[in-house]
Amino acid sequence: MNRLLLNCDIGESFGNWTMGLDAEVMPFIDCANIACGFHAGDPSIMRKTVSLALRHGVKIGAHPAYQDLAGFGRRSMAYTAQELQDLLHYQIGALDGICRAQGGRVSYVKPHGAMYNDMMANPAQLRAVIQAVAAYDPQLPLMLMATRDNSAAQALGDEYGLTLWFEAFADRAYDSAGHLVSRQLPGAVHHDAEVIIGQALTIARGDSLTASDGSALLLHANTLCVHGDNANSVAAVQRIREALDGQRTS
Amino acid sequence: MNRLLLNCDIGESFGNWTMGLDAEVMPFIDCANIACGFHAGDPSIMRKTVSLALRHGVKIGAHPAYQDLAGFGRRSMAYTAQELQDLLHYQIGALDGICRAQGGRVSYVKPHGAMYNDMMANPAQLRAVIQAVAAYDPQLPLMLMATRDNSAAQALGDEYGLTLWFEAFADRAYDSAGHLVSRQLPGAVHHDAEVIIGQALTIARGDSLTASDGSALLLHANTLCVHGDNANSVAAVQRIREALDGQRTS
Amino acid sequence: MNRLLLNCDIGESFGNWTMGLDAEVMPFIDCANIACGFHAGDPSIMRKTVSLALRHGVKIGAHPAYQDLAGFGRRSMAYTAQELQDLLHYQIGALDGICRAQGGRVSYVKPHGAMYNDMMANPAQLRAVIQAVAAYDPQLPLMLMATRDNSAAQALGDEYGLTLWFEAFADRAYDSAGHLVSRQLPGAVHHDAEVIIGQALTIARGDSLTASDGSALLLHANTLCVHGDNANSVAAVQRIREALDGQRTS
Amino acid sequence: MNRLLLNCDIGESFGNWTMGLDAEVMPFIDCANIACGFHAGDPSIMRKTVSLALRHGVKIGAHPAYQDLAGFGRRSMAYTAQELQDLLHYQIGALDGICRAQGGRVSYVKPHGAMYNDMMANPAQLRAVIQAVAAYDPQLPLMLMATRDNSAAQALGDEYGLTLWFEAFADRAYDSAGHLVSRQLPGAVHHDAEVIIGQALTIARGDSLTASDGSALLLHANTLCVHGDNANSVAAVQRIREALDGQRTS
Repeated sequence: MNRLLLNCDIGESFGNWTMGLDAEVMPFIDCANIACGFHAGDPSIMRKTVSLALRHGVKIGAHPAYQDLAGFGRRSMAYTAQELQDLLHYQIGALDGICRAQGGRVSYVKPHGAMYNDMMANPAQLRAVIQAVAAYDPQLPLMLMATRDNSAAQALGDEYGLTLWFEAFADRAYDSAGHLVSRQLPGAVHHDAEVIIGQALTIARGDSLTASDGSALLLHANTLCVHGDNANSVAAVQRIREALDGQRTS
Repeated sequence: MNRLLLNCDIGESFGNWTMGLDAEVMPFIDCANIACGFHAGDPSIMRKTVSLALRHGVKIGAHPAYQDLAGFGRRSMAYTAQELQDLLHYQIGALDGICRAQGGRVSYVKPHGAMYNDMMANPAQLRAVIQAVAAYDPQLPLMLMATRDNSAAQALGDEYGLTLWFEAFADRAYDSAGHLVSRQLPGAVHHDAEVIIGQALTIARGDSLTASDGSALLLHANTLCVHGDNANSVAAVQRIREALDGQRTS
Repeated sequence: MNRLLLNCDIGESFGNWTMGLDAEVMPFIDCANIACGFHAGDPSIMRKTVSLALRHGVKIGAHPAYQDLAGFGRRSMAYTAQELQDLLHYQIGALDGICRAQGGRVSYVKPHGAMYNDMMANPAQLRAVIQAVAAYDPQLPLMLMATRDNSAAQALGDEYGLTLWFEAFADRAYDSAGHLVSRQLPGAVHHDAEVIIGQALTIARGDSLTASDGSALLLHANTLCVHGDNANSVAAVQRIREALDGQRTS
Repeated sequence: MNRLLLNCDIGESFGNWTMGLDAEVMPFIDCANIACGFHAGDPSIMRKTVSLALRHGVKIGAHPAYQDLAGFGRRSMAYTAQELQDLLHYQIGALDGICRAQGGRVSYVKPHGAMYNDMMANPAQLRAVIQAVAAYDPQLPLMLMATRDNSAAQALGDEYGLTLWFEAFADRAYDSAGHLVSRQLPGAVHHDAEVIIGQALTIARGDSLTASDGSALLLHANTLCVHGDNANSVAAVQRIREALDGQRTS
């Protein structure tokens, strides 16, 4: 069994505002998606977050976003492909600069919020993102969403020689196409810790999940997205960490 | 005679606003101080500016600033030394990211506006800037102001193993301490092209200028700051370029 | 014949960047659409612009936008109706504050860029804008685009007791629905001053234009949108002003 | 005995970030100093905060700041007097716009953070603030710091016909000049609830405090600054409220 990496959005404080239990969740994750200043994370927050990740030996990922601090990068914005690539280079570079001053480096890229959603919904935008990361450094994997069929995304990644890391969710229900069930619908979000850990282990084993219509859904995932928002979610991450480690050693 | 590099602030447009004749002045300069988004220069402007510099074989310098777009980075702001270093790493890294996507790299650093002035007025701030550049890459020279006595700055640079490039001005009068005469005073700015070119050549030859009190002033300068604001200043840069080149070959 | 008001986007400089010949065009217009800080116009620019408008007895309109300085408010952004209303109240109020300190006041509202386009394309968004202006002050007219059939917009305005000022363009070709012909298509923009003045007079007389398919197009317009971008456009505004004044007195 | 108003900084959340227990503290205060978007508070946060204040019949104060979101308005910035006035008119107007849409209005002004400190330290800056508020609306009181001798400030207020509301602190030690003891020094901040309530009642009665050097200090204060940062501070506000109300009715 391949190791399923745990990735988590981190460094989403800004100035005088604090968000997330970064120090608490960092010990349990493999990959820290660090905000780059456009939706969250000012230069000083970024420095502290990079320092924390380096102390825990956690991979540092750039978590770039549309330039919309008031909207936390969650509002879609009509950028051109070129503008999108410029945004990516600026933000990846900025985080890499913060890393470099501490002897670290950016190890992968995961777009945030509306930039992530638009990339998954629009092949032209996915191409622009892949092209941007490859132009920056073709050794940097891009993290994106695993669905039932990753082949179109994989073909784009191959075209630019870029490694893709597909991510799945342990706390969300999936439809038969491998998309997340809308939060508007009942049962979209799992709250029971046993269900969440069970889904994590199922994905880690490479077994099929049961989609919302009852069909079997096999997700090929390299990483699992976890959350450090509050004490409950950190506790869940710790339990997922322990379950995955136990599974690997058993 | 050592070559006197011509450096120029470049890439100071923003979004829909244009400033400076970047394309016109680029052929005549050695070093482009490129704005990094905090006082001017959005990611797309930066990409175009880097592309222009690379086409002309001009060295790319990071031109970081305080975060004050409305004030064009010209208002002093009370940053701590640590915050200042974070600002520098973020902005140098961001420009380096834009460069990297085009196969270029940042080759030196020159702080902008109030950050530059505060660094020259306050040794603790100069130390913070030197420390920040050294932590990012000790191979990157820092550009700062030549005065009558560069030794204190030089000692700080030596302490961190950083190369310093001292800059002088051909179009400004100096006082006997080697500081620029305030623009409030008569004769502070030279407008006559012959005077400007004469001062450039004097500095390039390593000869003494005449300070505002009539005393001789010897500036040890590695670079001359020129301006691409308008057609007149670009014409002056072209003439300075030709005069310096003629001097070197004569 | 009713007077056709000339309206112009004004005050679109920002910080150290200048845009538009505001002082040159102000003598010839009736209505100044003044940027409110979100796409252009910082507080000091706004103060100067309001002062200029007051000196010329020109009506001051709030020209609010999405919060996207780097994109000049031209990128569509996915705001909710409530967020859109909050944006409007903030920006109209801010400009009114600047006016009040000089003894003036905001006299109407014209959304800018993508906010304007989205309002014209999406009835829910138009309703949100109308509701927002009516909540601020039902005496403030809202400026929006005249098309072949203004009745749906008018019905919405009536529902909230809001006056609508429909605007037309003298320098653009129209299709048969009364929408502007896309700038991508040939003939979309009139460059011949005689054509522009002719179209202005036709609209002012309440006569039909000839749409791009040759059909007659009658636009009921209260105001004509003119431009102060450069010397040519200012000259055109002056000629339109003179033509309209001549027509009224003849 | 005149009533001592309780004022509190409110609405200092921004976008997705929450700060302060606004809903919890609002029932106990008289005056809400509402952030205006430059150090905290986006238009939607402002709308919610104004709505909350109106529901509780709490006076709405504009709490304008330097434009420094990342620094929470706490870094001094070198604005000119004119720029400072423009900042004030913009922000007071913006909050007034949000109020107006809900049938409310701004009732007073209290500068925030570095703008407040600079105003207290620099008479030219205090004059600029007073002039700005008077130009906006001479009926709006300005809230500023009570010291041993308020006469210089009062003379400036009288010159512009502006009412001044002097504020004192119940949880801070004072020196003999009536300035707050620096937080760097021991005993600067009172943590004991009984001490805090005692100081509040002393100020309310118009009795003298004991300054840090043991001398008697009489502060003429119209209002007391309280804090809704956390549950403890809200509890303290509630107790101060009850003590003041008890004192008035006894």
